[in-house]
Amino acid sequence: MKHLTALQDLFQAEVDQLNLGTAPSKLYDPMHYIMQLGGKRLRPILSLMGAGIYGDPSRAMPQAIAIELFHNFSLIHDDIMDAAPLRRGKTTVHKKWNDNVGILSGDGMLVKAYQYLAQCAPAVLPEVLQTFSQTALEVCEGQQMDMDFESMDEVAAATYIQMIQFKTSVLLGCAMKVGALVGGGSKKDADALYQFALLLGTSFQIKDDYLDVYGDPEKFGKQVGGDILSNKKTLLWIEAKRRAAVQNIDFGAYAAMEPNEEKVHSFQELYKILGVDAFAKEQIDHYYQLSLEALDSVEVPAEKLAPLKEFAAWLYSRES
Amino acid sequence: MKHLTALQDLFQAEVDQLNLGTAPSKLYDPMHYIMQLGGKRLRPILSLMGAGIYGDPSRAMPQAIAIELFHNFSLIHDDIMDAAPLRRGKTTVHKKWNDNVGILSGDGMLVKAYQYLAQCAPAVLPEVLQTFSQTALEVCEGQQMDMDFESMDEVAAATYIQMIQFKTSVLLGCAMKVGALVGGGSKKDADALYQFALLLGTSFQIKDDYLDVYGDPEKFGKQVGGDILSNKKTLLWIEAKRRAAVQNIDFGAYAAMEPNEEKVHSFQELYKILGVDAFAKEQIDHYYQLSLEALDSVEVPAEKLAPLKEFAAWLYSRES
Repeated sequence: MKHLTALQDLFQAEVDQLNLGTAPSKLYDPMHYIMQLGGKRLRPILSLMGAGIYGDPSRAMPQAIAIELFHNFSLIHDDIMDAAPLRRGKTTVHKKWNDNVGILSGDGMLVKAYQYLAQCAPAVLPEVLQTFSQTALEVCEGQQMDMDFESMDEVAAATYIQMIQFKTSVLLGCAMKVGALVGGGSKKDADALYQFALLLGTSFQIKDDYLDVYGDPEKFGKQVGGDILSNKKTLLWIEAKRRAAVQNIDFGAYAAMEPNEEKVHSFQELYKILGVDAFAKEQIDHYYQLSLEALDSVEVPAEKLAPLKEFAAWLYSRES
Repeated sequence: MKHLTALQDLFQAEVDQLNLGTAPSKLYDPMHYIMQLGGKRLRPILSLMGAGIYGDPSRAMPQAIAIELFHNFSLIHDDIMDAAPLRRGKTTVHKKWNDNVGILSGDGMLVKAYQYLAQCAPAVLPEVLQTFSQTALEVCEGQQMDMDFESMDEVAAATYIQMIQFKTSVLLGCAMKVGALVGGGSKKDADALYQFALLLGTSFQIKDDYLDVYGDPEKFGKQVGGDILSNKKTLLWIEAKRRAAVQNIDFGAYAAMEPNEEKVHSFQELYKILGVDAFAKEQIDHYYQLSLEALDSVEVPAEKLAPLKEFAAWLYSRES
C-alpha cells in the first residue's frame, strides 16, 4: 500500500499546516484539536484517489479537507449526543471544553467545510455542492435513525443497512465522487465511483459490527464485545434476534444478561449457533463484490483503477 | 409600509408550503416548527428587496428561504447554549423535544440553507456562496464572543459593537447582498447594499439594548429591564461602567443589587445621570445615518431605493 501511505502523508502534511482561524479561540481551537486526532483518513484519501484517476490527486486537496472537516464536525456533535468521553483514545471536544463549545465549533466546522468544498472550478461547483449537501442531509438522517433505533423493539436488517449507509457510507461515496468531479472525471464516472465507495463503505461498516464480536483483541484497537455489552442493535444482533424467534430461542434472556465477559462469550456462541457469523461474512463479501462491480462502469483504462482495487482489498482485509 | 407587508405575505406563503423533508420526523418536524414561529422576517425581506431593486423580488425567494433557515438554525443552537425555555413566546425546540433533537435538526437546517442558497444562476453562485459562508462563520464568532463576554470583567464598547455586528448585523448584510446578486445587481451595488443592511442592523441592535431599558412596556413585547436584571453587558451597561469609574461612582454596588423592579429603576436613573441614554441614542442615529449614506454608492435610479429607505425608517422608529 505504498500509494495509500503516500496519500495519507500528503493529506497529513496539509492538516499540519491547516489554519481555520484563531479568534475567538474557543471556536477555532477545538477544530484544530479534533482534526489532529488522526484516524485512518479514509474519506479524504478517497477524494484524492478520485482526482488521481484523472491527474494530480492534490487537485482535490481542498475537497479532501472539506470532507474531513465535515466528518469531524459530525463526530463532535455525535459525541455530545452520545455523551461520549473518548474519541480515538483522546478526550472528546465537549469533555475537554464543554457542550456549548462543542455545538458551536462543530457548526463552524460545517461552514468551513463548505468554504473548502467551494474551492473548485465554477463549472463543477453546482454538482459538487449538490452532492455534498444531499450527503450531509443523509448523514443527519442516518444519525437520527440510529438514535430512533435505540427505543425501537424491532428493526429490519434492510432498515439497519440503510441507516449505516446514510450515517457512514454515503460520505465515502461523496468523498470519492467529489474528488473525481474536481479531478476532471465525467458525471457518469463520478456516479459509478460514488457507488463503488458507498458499497465498499457498507461492507466496511458491517465488518465493523463483525469485528466487534470476533475481532482479535490484540489488533482491533477497541474493546471486543463492546456492542454486545451495550445491547447495541448491530446487524448481527438484529438478524440473531429474528432467527432466535423462529427457532424459539429466548433472545430476551441473552439480552438481559449482566454486561460482563460471560455475556460476550454467550453471544459469540449464540451467533454461531444461529449462523449469524456466516451471515455477516456473506454480507461483507456481498457488498465488497458489488463495490468492485461498480468500477466496471468507470470509463478509464484498467490500470487507473488499480489503486482503488488495492484500497478496497486493504479495507476488506482489515482487522482493526 | 404597503410594500413591506406585501413582501412579508409573499414570504409567509412560501413558508406555509415549505417541505424540507418528512422522515425521520424528529429531524424535520423541528425545522418546520421553528420556521412557523414567525418573527419580523427582516432577513428574508431584505433578500427579496435586494432582488426587487433589479426586477422581480421573488427571484431571490430560494435565497430568502436559505437566510431564514440559517437564522432559525442559529436560534435553535443558541437556545440550547442559553438553556432558553421560550422563543417568540413558544416552547424552544430543545425543550419541546430534547437537546439532541435540537442539535441535529439545527445541523440539518444549516445544510438545507446551503441547498436553497445554491438555487441560483451558476454565474453568481461562487460569490453568493462565499458571502454566505463568510457571514455564517462571523455569526459563529459573534456567538462565541458573546459567551466569552459573560466571564470577562471589561469589554470595550468597540468590541461590543463588533460582537453585535457579527452575531446579528452581518446576516442582514448578507441577506441583502445575496438578494441583489441573484436579482442581477453588480458586485459593486451588492457590496454597497451589504453595508446599508449591516449598518442598519447595527443601529437596530443598539436600539434593542435601548428599548430594553426605556421601552414602553405596552409596546415592547418583552419584559423591560430584562438585560438589567441579568447584568447583561449591553452597550449601555458597558459605557455606564466606564463612565462610572471616571466619576468614582460605585457601579459594582448597582450590579450587585437584587434583581427586582428597584434595580431596573436605579439603572434607568444611573444611565441618565451618566448620559448613557443620550449616548445610546447618538449611536442609534449614527449607524442609521451611515446606513443611508451607504445607499449613495448604489448605481440605480433613486426611486428604486425608496422602499429600502422606507424600510430603514420603519426599523429606526420601531418601539418593539
